[in-house]
Amino acid sequence: MALPRWALPEYFEDVLPHEAQRIERLRRVLLDEFRLHGYQYVIPPMAEFVDSLVSGTGQKMADAMFKFVDQLTGRSMALRADTTPQVTRIDAHLLNRSGVTRLCYCGPVVHVLPRTMTASREPLQIGAELYGHAGIEADVEVLRLLSRTLTLSGADAVRIDVGHIGLFRALSRLAELTPESEETLFNILQGKDVPALRDFVANIAEPARSGLLALPGLYGDANVLVRARDVLPDLPGVHSALDELLHLARHFGERSLSFDLADLRGYHYHTGLMFAAYCGASPTAIALGGRYNEVGRAFGRPRPATGFSLDLRELAALGPDAAIPGAILSPLEASADLETLVTQLRAAGEVVMPELPGHAGDWREAGCDRRIVLKDGAWRVVALED
Amino acid sequence: MALPRWALPEYFEDVLPHEAQRIERLRRVLLDEFRLHGYQYVIPPMAEFVDSLVSGTGQKMADAMFKFVDQLTGRSMALRADTTPQVTRIDAHLLNRSGVTRLCYCGPVVHVLPRTMTASREPLQIGAELYGHAGIEADVEVLRLLSRTLTLSGADAVRIDVGHIGLFRALSRLAELTPESEETLFNILQGKDVPALRDFVANIAEPARSGLLALPGLYGDANVLVRARDVLPDLPGVHSALDELLHLARHFGERSLSFDLADLRGYHYHTGLMFAAYCGASPTAIALGGRYNEVGRAFGRPRPATGFSLDLRELAALGPDAAIPGAILSPLEASADLETLVTQLRAAGEVVMPELPGHAGDWREAGCDRRIVLKDGAWRVVALED
Repeated sequence: MALPRWALPEYFEDVLPHEAQRIERLRRVLLDEFRLHGYQYVIPPMAEFVDSLVSGTGQKMADAMFKFVDQLTGRSMALRADTTPQVTRIDAHLLNRSGVTRLCYCGPVVHVLPRTMTASREPLQIGAELYGHAGIEADVEVLRLLSRTLTLSGADAVRIDVGHIGLFRALSRLAELTPESEETLFNILQGKDVPALRDFVANIAEPARSGLLALPGLYGDANVLVRARDVLPDLPGVHSALDELLHLARHFGERSLSFDLADLRGYHYHTGLMFAAYCGASPTAIALGGRYNEVGRAFGRPRPATGFSLDLRELAALGPDAAIPGAILSPLEASADLETLVTQLRAAGEVVMPELPGHAGDWREAGCDRRIVLKDGAWRVVALED
Repeated sequence: MALPRWALPEYFEDVLPHEAQRIERLRRVLLDEFRLHGYQYVIPPMAEFVDSLVSGTGQKMADAMFKFVDQLTGRSMALRADTTPQVTRIDAHLLNRSGVTRLCYCGPVVHVLPRTMTASREPLQIGAELYGHAGIEADVEVLRLLSRTLTLSGADAVRIDVGHIGLFRALSRLAELTPESEETLFNILQGKDVPALRDFVANIAEPARSGLLALPGLYGDANVLVRARDVLPDLPGVHSALDELLHLARHFGERSLSFDLADLRGYHYHTGLMFAAYCGASPTAIALGGRYNEVGRAFGRPRPATGFSLDLRELAALGPDAAIPGAILSPLEASADLETLVTQLRAAGEVVMPELPGHAGDWREAGCDRRIVLKDGAWRVVALED
């Protein structure tokens, strides 16, 4: 079946005026908010050498990207599938600051395949990243900024789930797992497959065994952290992870958090606290974030890092839909008075479009609900008659 | 020579905070201006099927694009190298309005090779397009909007050159040129190579010969149009093109235009009035535009169309550079009074960033010039001591 010439590839869309205006409005609100919190806006390129884009992020990222050859060098380039590694590169090499650096960004990323059945292959990724601080205070700040982002978007029924990769790493080290069996365990825990988990830990010695078995049940409010102290083994890695989560629970304040100690979403990438935001009953996260201290190492300058990102188009669609106010049609006449009125109307935020001569169409379809007419010697705005 | 992992391909750049903020500021000013003039914002995708992206624009466009295969369909996709054909597709098929439609856009486009030695391979293209009106009034409106865009950018010493492809087409039809020799003539005129032009027209009959020979000399202010009436052959295509240019010269008003009747920049694309804006002594246009009634035909719905586009990064660099105001460092303390002060400062547009504990760096490098301190029992903003 031949597709028409103007058909788009599946999971790619045009954003039409109504939705585009909504996205642009939220984009400005969020970038302004980030800026007022000290996050400086950067614009990394859409395409780079593959080597640079996959640095510190693994093969999964490499498979997610569209690739092509740079005619100038013959080297492999790719379209970015995630902005975070680029911003990490900027922190490591371009800004090269010794202290805390807060950066933010907003632009498209492109995926070879959609990440879910309803996702776009071209999310409009917006995010904020904090570099140069290893403490939990930085994670709290970033998580608060995400919470504020969700509030500003007007999205309803938002839940933030928090986990910590340190628990999994401490337990799998204690269990002396090979990289292969760690990967198997990862898949079991991701699927919350308790029968498979029971089989898997059968040959693992205590106390790693009961620790791993306890993880899927450690889900809920901050009381989970108290329970975790009792049921997880007495290991430095477990203590420091739980200490961080407790600090967060005490200092977050803004909205109630849920804790999910078996969450391993950012296993290949994250090094500490991790979080995901959900909206309503959807099982797909609308925002992801956490600590990723190791990504900068690939660029020769490892720095502590924590941040979050989300698809601005998805987020904008979750907020309330504001009607676009009607526009005003203006005659195309050379009149200084008319020009003054049009300038005043636009300065007051009104959309004014000239009526081009000989136009047969309906100006309502262009969004007009009023027009300017000459009445009793003066230009006035009146309703657009049908 | 191995490039470091974090090196970018040539002609691709990261935009760092200072420049990014400048670009973002101008982006908002221009998109707001377009909106107030009735141009509705749309966001076409970064990538599409090649067939769709090259529709109506020819092989040159196809060569300019990075291509890759869609894993879902096996069809060839490409990264857009120009947004205009996409917006034309949106007008033709998604909005499907019968009347005048004004659209605008802003986003990256990617070129396989840079268009000039100083150009980026990833211009941030911003533009406005007007569909559904064939009259010169639409061209005047679009050219005025470009002029307003240049004024708002603060770029100095801007010049707008105007041409009309109708003159070249009328003369080459009169001369009965084959497509091949029309292409040769095109190259000669683009290069303003008068000796070659003289050789080329040797076998062409009058009055086409003297008409073609006159073209390179028809450059300057509106008087050029009067001279053109005298020296160009008496053909309907010549008359209608000159009528349009004269209408423009009379009704434009805003700034003085130059006319360049041998300009063929948009030969493969344009169908009427064409224009280019230049800044200072640079020979490279900072904005291009004109009428392109035929592009929609490839999408099965030809509509009159006129518009312009430019690289927002280039334009932002031409305007005045505003210093970014210094930020305020805030202690990380749980105090309701402090929180109130920080909220007030941010509401007043101040950037306030928390001082994370144990930070060894210099807060000046993060942009701070003041800090909040507790003094005589109240939180106050003071200068950042060194």
